[in-house]
Amino acid sequence: MSTLHQDSIVIDGLIIAKLDRSVFEDMKKGGLAAANCTVSVWDDFPKTVDNIAELKQLIRDNSDLVTLARNTADIVKAKAEGKTGIILGFQNAHAFEDNLGYIEAFHDMGVRVVQLCYNTQNLVGTGCYERDGGLSGYGREVIAEMNRVGIMVDLSHVGSKTSEEAILASTKPVAYTHCLPLGLKDHPRNKSDAELKFIADHGGFIGVTMFSPFLKRGNDSTVHDYVEAIDYVINIVGEDCVGLGSDFTQGHGHEFFEMLTHDKGRWRRLTHFGKVVNPEGIRTIGDFPNLTATMLQSGWSETRITKVLGANWMQFFGQVWGA
Amino acid sequence: MSTLHQDSIVIDGLIIAKLDRSVFEDMKKGGLAAANCTVSVWDDFPKTVDNIAELKQLIRDNSDLVTLARNTADIVKAKAEGKTGIILGFQNAHAFEDNLGYIEAFHDMGVRVVQLCYNTQNLVGTGCYERDGGLSGYGREVIAEMNRVGIMVDLSHVGSKTSEEAILASTKPVAYTHCLPLGLKDHPRNKSDAELKFIADHGGFIGVTMFSPFLKRGNDSTVHDYVEAIDYVINIVGEDCVGLGSDFTQGHGHEFFEMLTHDKGRWRRLTHFGKVVNPEGIRTIGDFPNLTATMLQSGWSETRITKVLGANWMQFFGQVWGA
Repeated sequence: MSTLHQDSIVIDGLIIAKLDRSVFEDMKKGGLAAANCTVSVWDDFPKTVDNIAELKQLIRDNSDLVTLARNTADIVKAKAEGKTGIILGFQNAHAFEDNLGYIEAFHDMGVRVVQLCYNTQNLVGTGCYERDGGLSGYGREVIAEMNRVGIMVDLSHVGSKTSEEAILASTKPVAYTHCLPLGLKDHPRNKSDAELKFIADHGGFIGVTMFSPFLKRGNDSTVHDYVEAIDYVINIVGEDCVGLGSDFTQGHGHEFFEMLTHDKGRWRRLTHFGKVVNPEGIRTIGDFPNLTATMLQSGWSETRITKVLGANWMQFFGQVWGA
Repeated sequence: MSTLHQDSIVIDGLIIAKLDRSVFEDMKKGGLAAANCTVSVWDDFPKTVDNIAELKQLIRDNSDLVTLARNTADIVKAKAEGKTGIILGFQNAHAFEDNLGYIEAFHDMGVRVVQLCYNTQNLVGTGCYERDGGLSGYGREVIAEMNRVGIMVDLSHVGSKTSEEAILASTKPVAYTHCLPLGLKDHPRNKSDAELKFIADHGGFIGVTMFSPFLKRGNDSTVHDYVEAIDYVINIVGEDCVGLGSDFTQGHGHEFFEMLTHDKGRWRRLTHFGKVVNPEGIRTIGDFPNLTATMLQSGWSETRITKVLGANWMQFFGQVWGA
């Protein structure tokens, strides 16, 4: 591990791994100061509360490796103690159900990032795998409440129209926590140059993912393709609003992907990824130091590397969550 | 009560009254053979099951006046026994939540009519009080399952685009159970001539309401205005696919209307009706014989009156519900 990687605050904007001690050990190996970990995709309110309670127990049982991160100070502290701060995040506002009161309740529980829609239509708007009618009236109320309590609006799997309207409706900047540029590969989950520019122009943030089905070279990709994709985004929006959002799924098997790729986890099929192989050189969370090494090899400045690894996320978290 | 009214099967396609013995007595006075009674508007699955259980208890406690109607034979039997058949209906598919399995469960419980959306966006589509992005992919799955089990698709409060797509998607004919023509009053809840023609051209049904805020003369309306509105619809679609859908709300107070006119029953205000006075001459359910008298005065043939009072609904129920 380079000194640069070791000294940097490294943040992963999106991990949806099957969390257990082995993943936490890999986070330590990867030098992660914090990760936004998904605790709800298709789940309703009670199931999501259950998921959160389970994860909190897991965090307590592994308190030598991880800690719950409710704010940026918690992340700084985690880094200083050689731990990883676990940020609670949703990939779907479905867990809010029809109840605006649940939003503050989830914030109280520690939830700090919520994607508005996951692939399809919900009460808030529509995801990127079906025709998108835009942000609903209720969706505007949801965003206002998320703004008030300090939960980040994530638009990665959200449709283009709903995303645009959410960017305009939110009084706090919003993020694509894990996306790739359409300019490198045409895919419903990837964002066009115009979309990347639009969110950045409105103070927003882009976490770049390395999920191979969305990368130009698919399962043949290497860590160099990931760096190329980040470079592509930086060339459009500059280096101050870009970070990592790996979308690591480690530990999960076939059934988990079947759940993700069917509406509500079990109805019609929305997409099919087939076999997913992470880019060579960054197969698991523990390989993050190799990303830094690749950035150095690619001629990136230390300043740029530090920003993209996590300094940018830290500044953005502070803006959205408050002090 | 005229012999014609007494001998006819009179059906009300939509009642959302505060059901109790006094309302059931009024149904008897009105000569109702059956009424589609709303048991869910903004409620989720468990609350709706609760509402159904409560209503079934009420029906048992008043079995001298009412009976549960699961099919057309139950309605014929109710009429023969001088009772009113209570049809269980929803004004929102919200109670289906994200679970297609709930649809057959509700059919098992006796639910026979479900409106896809109530005023705003849900998982299925969008209501008539906000921008309408059309039927969702999940909405298509919901309609297919409703078709399979035999629950009528109701589109009265549904947006124009979602309605059009639902009419095309449904393999069984669908209904506006309670609407008025836009041609007589411009209102988001009223249907244009083209919309009325479109549903009829696809084998669908129109129940005409008399909710005064949607009538040309508002609270000054009389039973003659109601007959005029039905005449208007018949002039567009003929007399074979038109019936009654009063939208009687009797027994409910201010709070109930506040619940109906706010998204999910309690968030932002969608509309404001102010004071609602039913048309003179048909102030309560018990006044239905006066509607028949007014039709006769207006020169309607006995055949047309019999059809519109309920024979048309009976034929349509048979088509949608099966034998």
